[in-house]
Amino acid sequence: MASSAQVSAEQNNHVDYVIQYSFAGTDITQATQQFETLLRSLSEVGLQSEVRQGDEESLLVFVRAAKKHRLKRAIYQSRIRDWLHGVRNSEPEPEESAEPQTEGERLRVIYHMITVPKDAGGAGITMKHGEWKNVTAIFPLHDQEANKQCMRAFNSKTFLSSEDIDYIRDAFGESVGFYFSFLQCYFRFLLFPAAFGFSCWLLLGSFSIIYTVVNALWCIIFIEYWKRQEEDLSCRWQTKGVSAVRERRREFKPEKEVYDQSTGETRGTFPTVKRTCRQLLQVPFAVLVTVALGLIIATCFAIEIFISEVYNGPLKTYLVIIPTILLSALIPTMSAVLMSVATRLNDYENYETQAAYDVAMTQKIFVINFITSYLPVFLTAFVYVPFASLIVPYLDVFHLTVRPFVSKEHATTARTDFSIDPDRLRKQVIYFTVTAQAINFAMETIVPILKQRLMREYKAYNRRKQAQAGAGEQSDEKRAPPVTFNDHKDETEFLKRVRNEAELEDYDVTDDLREMCIQFGYLALFSTTWPLVPVSFLVNNWIELRSDFFKICIECKRPTPQRADTIGPWLDSLGFLSWTGSITSSALVYMFHVRPNGAPTAITGWALLLTIFFSEHLYLMVRYAVSATLSKMDPPNVRQERTDCYLLRKKYLDSTIAARSSDDEEEQPTVQPDETGDGSEITRKSLEEDARRWSRHGTDSAERFWMRQRGWRESAQVGSSMIQALSLHEKKRQ
Amino acid sequence: MASSAQVSAEQNNHVDYVIQYSFAGTDITQATQQFETLLRSLSEVGLQSEVRQGDEESLLVFVRAAKKHRLKRAIYQSRIRDWLHGVRNSEPEPEESAEPQTEGERLRVIYHMITVPKDAGGAGITMKHGEWKNVTAIFPLHDQEANKQCMRAFNSKTFLSSEDIDYIRDAFGESVGFYFSFLQCYFRFLLFPAAFGFSCWLLLGSFSIIYTVVNALWCIIFIEYWKRQEEDLSCRWQTKGVSAVRERRREFKPEKEVYDQSTGETRGTFPTVKRTCRQLLQVPFAVLVTVALGLIIATCFAIEIFISEVYNGPLKTYLVIIPTILLSALIPTMSAVLMSVATRLNDYENYETQAAYDVAMTQKIFVINFITSYLPVFLTAFVYVPFASLIVPYLDVFHLTVRPFVSKEHATTARTDFSIDPDRLRKQVIYFTVTAQAINFAMETIVPILKQRLMREYKAYNRRKQAQAGAGEQSDEKRAPPVTFNDHKDETEFLKRVRNEAELEDYDVTDDLREMCIQFGYLALFSTTWPLVPVSFLVNNWIELRSDFFKICIECKRPTPQRADTIGPWLDSLGFLSWTGSITSSALVYMFHVRPNGAPTAITGWALLLTIFFSEHLYLMVRYAVSATLSKMDPPNVRQERTDCYLLRKKYLDSTIAARSSDDEEEQPTVQPDETGDGSEITRKSLEEDARRWSRHGTDSAERFWMRQRGWRESAQVGSSMIQALSLHEKKRQ
Repeated sequence: MASSAQVSAEQNNHVDYVIQYSFAGTDITQATQQFETLLRSLSEVGLQSEVRQGDEESLLVFVRAAKKHRLKRAIYQSRIRDWLHGVRNSEPEPEESAEPQTEGERLRVIYHMITVPKDAGGAGITMKHGEWKNVTAIFPLHDQEANKQCMRAFNSKTFLSSEDIDYIRDAFGESVGFYFSFLQCYFRFLLFPAAFGFSCWLLLGSFSIIYTVVNALWCIIFIEYWKRQEEDLSCRWQTKGVSAVRERRREFKPEKEVYDQSTGETRGTFPTVKRTCRQLLQVPFAVLVTVALGLIIATCFAIEIFISEVYNGPLKTYLVIIPTILLSALIPTMSAVLMSVATRLNDYENYETQAAYDVAMTQKIFVINFITSYLPVFLTAFVYVPFASLIVPYLDVFHLTVRPFVSKEHATTARTDFSIDPDRLRKQVIYFTVTAQAINFAMETIVPILKQRLMREYKAYNRRKQAQAGAGEQSDEKRAPPVTFNDHKDETEFLKRVRNEAELEDYDVTDDLREMCIQFGYLALFSTTWPLVPVSFLVNNWIELRSDFFKICIECKRPTPQRADTIGPWLDSLGFLSWTGSITSSALVYMFHVRPNGAPTAITGWALLLTIFFSEHLYLMVRYAVSATLSKMDPPNVRQERTDCYLLRKKYLDSTIAARSSDDEEEQPTVQPDETGDGSEITRKSLEEDARRWSRHGTDSAERFWMRQRGWRESAQVGSSMIQALSLHEKKRQ
Repeated sequence: MASSAQVSAEQNNHVDYVIQYSFAGTDITQATQQFETLLRSLSEVGLQSEVRQGDEESLLVFVRAAKKHRLKRAIYQSRIRDWLHGVRNSEPEPEESAEPQTEGERLRVIYHMITVPKDAGGAGITMKHGEWKNVTAIFPLHDQEANKQCMRAFNSKTFLSSEDIDYIRDAFGESVGFYFSFLQCYFRFLLFPAAFGFSCWLLLGSFSIIYTVVNALWCIIFIEYWKRQEEDLSCRWQTKGVSAVRERRREFKPEKEVYDQSTGETRGTFPTVKRTCRQLLQVPFAVLVTVALGLIIATCFAIEIFISEVYNGPLKTYLVIIPTILLSALIPTMSAVLMSVATRLNDYENYETQAAYDVAMTQKIFVINFITSYLPVFLTAFVYVPFASLIVPYLDVFHLTVRPFVSKEHATTARTDFSIDPDRLRKQVIYFTVTAQAINFAMETIVPILKQRLMREYKAYNRRKQAQAGAGEQSDEKRAPPVTFNDHKDETEFLKRVRNEAELEDYDVTDDLREMCIQFGYLALFSTTWPLVPVSFLVNNWIELRSDFFKICIECKRPTPQRADTIGPWLDSLGFLSWTGSITSSALVYMFHVRPNGAPTAITGWALLLTIFFSEHLYLMVRYAVSATLSKMDPPNVRQERTDCYLLRKKYLDSTIAARSSDDEEEQPTVQPDETGDGSEITRKSLEEDARRWSRHGTDSAERFWMRQRGWRESAQVGSSMIQALSLHEKKRQ
């Protein structure tokens, strides 16, 4: 890969970062001044820059770390910081030989140089924030050749090798690397439930106890295994404990400045108690989410049931689509509203670090997604199936609205006809686990490409129109250059590519992780309804991995490498879903075992609850056992790291022990004197005489205690005479 | 305390450790040789020794670290090891100035010198093991004066200050310190539920929902608070992560020797999978415990109910005692049997480190104690109360046995009379939380003293008898000395004290922790039955703390200081009990709310299970929230440690940044040249000319890209001209 890196660097003209400077809506003088400051700041930290035209309202600043020693120093500093925070075990090599080990490290360090505040040694350029609000993007350029090679390679194999994952990590940073590694691990693990689920589907049908138990066990093992895998990766990539190195969040608003005596610094703080109080708002937020989304879902659900199963009037085939349309219109709108509420709430909680902010945000996103994704199925399984015959009569409300169009007889016949559709649950699960996944794939991969194409067409069209208009007004357009790009011919291709990349969206790994997490939820919560779920996911995830890679490479700006040692709070979400799965699965199995079509007659509350109780606690016990067992097995890289630590310690300790033994030799002469003179017979009398002599010399009583026996040989003699005497005495007594 | 330490050292004749060497049942020559080896080994590591007579079959070797530089080196090595394992943050001061900070550190290091294998630089004396099986005890001497002062001080105050806890830690080591700190924290926390419980008892009576909720919340907060407190203490005592430094267990039997390439060492290992399989035996063990103890308890329980509530024949008042006698005879016997099974099982599991062994053992002990302590109450609450009327008729079995003694009419009248005793549950809880605690106190504190006294009397009696017999045979007893102690008169008192201390039992902090943990269990599980439980515990624990301190000082050998950073697996047990409490308490409240005397008529299964389900999950949610909140509040010592770390890092980083800026100044001249020559107007034409010129010089295209603008000033000018041009153009278009 080293040589290909060279090729790509050539292709990218050795550009490390591109900074997009947009001056739309800013006063010209101000924009010019600001732009000058930008270039000066970059130059001050040792970065070389070249300016080219961007689109109509922006410039592109190309940045590279031209001064090798400045880059080396930045890398060295970053490593020292890691070492001091315990991310690295060994002290880094000296500054002179500090070369970036990977493309990722190089880009990360340069990004750090660009963004870190001036007093910490950076250029202090903060994207879209404060004085730098004109800086709209800072991004590295894609390594197109390598990306293409990878895409081709990935498409031709089933499993990515760990080298492939390492490549992703080198190119896009550890946080993206963790996502792909997770996806790969999940895909590999899915093989078993896919095979097992398929056999269960053939032999046992839905709601099999065996499938449910195996599935729950699989969930536990998968999550615990992934935890170990995470640890392993973080050792391999040297990012263990990297969250300790994170910088302060720019948007953090300290409430008061506190002078810390011990550090001698003034530091803005925000009281934890106050933040906790603000966090309590999450409870009403969760209630709001549940009510707002729940109401929409439940209403559409009720309408759907009414139309498809009760209503018998005209236009039925068309009316059935109404709830679907309503849902697909209302849910995204409401989700967007709730997301903005969540963002504001999260801002209000005022976290000090970006990591803490992201964790809190992720939790809120999870709540929203949990409701939108699983509530429909929950309603079918735990409201419609057991209680439909009780609830359906109340759907009369809708009758009132349709009455004008329907004759009375129609409605009445409909109501008596009503019976539960036992297949509804399965159909719904199939929709969410197959159809919705496919739709999602299309929305994520194909739609953005189309959108991009259209946007470019539109821009080009605009430009052409403008050029024509410009040609019309050519008379008074002498000094102002036309807004066609007048690039140097060597650079045309390159600049066109860069301009395209600048228009791409930012890649956010959280979205992809969320998607996988929600998908896992269907498997854990409802797959007992239709054991082919893991088969569908297996197929889907093979495509997903490739399409996500395609998305990063083609549809998004190359992400700035970020380090991570975990997939973060999503891990907790997975655990939560798997736990909840132990409740829902057992409940589903019980309900549909009592009577295959799940009618409520035979379901007794206490038996259902007892099933849930046992299943949940069995789940927790097994989880504890699995986790305890796995925690004792070290993955290879963890073991390697432990060995390294051990060696380091051993070296250090050996050196002190060696020092000791050389010392001992010097010591011998001083020891000798109190070990000589042991030849003469020691009698109690002579000892007592000694003691008397010493007491006359005025030694204190404690010292006298230690002077009765001179050296260990004398002690040994005294001891052996005691042993003999006592033993003889004992013998005689017997 | 420093001066008093001096005084105590005088009192103890500067003795650091006493080694008891027992030669009973060993050949004299062998014993003598072995004894010589012992003294030589001690001398080799720089420890001075004096030998005195012990009792009839043992010698006492008094040991002190006479050579200051050897002790200093040992302390330095221990600190280096801590530093390398991350227990200390800062590199220790040099060897020459390494003084033991506390009595505890001194004793710990000397113990380490005595026991550690020779190749690791110690004397390699392993108590009661292998070649050293004659070494029956290695113990430091009590500091009687300071202990007495402390006892007096503790008795006169309600709360121990943190200095008091520090004293305990200095004298007996961190693991004992942690126990007392826990006990103190628990006692302090009990104040609230005691006051609240007392008011509830007055105003609301038993089974109050309010009391139950508050109690569960209190349990959560207490446990989470203690976790923080533990962290705080481990920072204060510098023992954070100390479990990483633990040595290998002597009894560990490696299955195969593995040569580790990277460390170049051969190391005995035991496969994790094999150990895990062996650990699976814990499941049948838990079943065995439950069945064996459960059978005894259930039988005695049934007999008791039969006699007290069904049986109406003669001798009833006497017969009632039978089950109690049976219980107190059978349970300890069975527990002892099970404990030995547990120990063997634990040995079989073959742990590598003592820490892992202790954790596994603690879990097994907890299972046994859980059954013996709580099963009786469980039976009353969840079997007797709801199902008594169903079960009691089956107690006919006992009728058969009593039939010979009772007339038939008696028995019949009895059966129709039967009704549940609603007060039985409360009586039982009161028994376990008041009476049993008092009995326990007596067994733990008073009985051992009496036993000691009796033993000494008996020994003295024996000796007197022997002396008389010896006097009778005086004729042929010329060479063998009599077995009265012929101590030097200065030492008589001291040696008598040491001989007494040598006879004392070893102190095991696990027993005391177990006791507290079980006590906490009653509070979490059943205190809703009788809200005065915390009041009883408050009183009990005030005494418990003092009596435990008394026990350590008077009834046990002074323990060798051991480091710890937690109370260990008991913390998990506390969490487990508190969790279980959320189930039992809610069940009890529901059952006794439906009908005050808890009769089964109104209890419905589904409502009971639903109550449990909600209560448990509410508990888990609250626990999560409390734990998340508390984890953000740093206790003072943790904050202090973080500040220290921060300062260390800052110093280091500042030095590299300082190096950088001095570098920069040197750099200026080299930067200057490419920033000059900016004065002239830059036109596109001149730039292109430049490019052409460069291309002729054969520079590669990537380099040419970076040479179009010379220095940041030129870039800024190019940029500003572009901004102006583009902005003008934009304006015109509008």
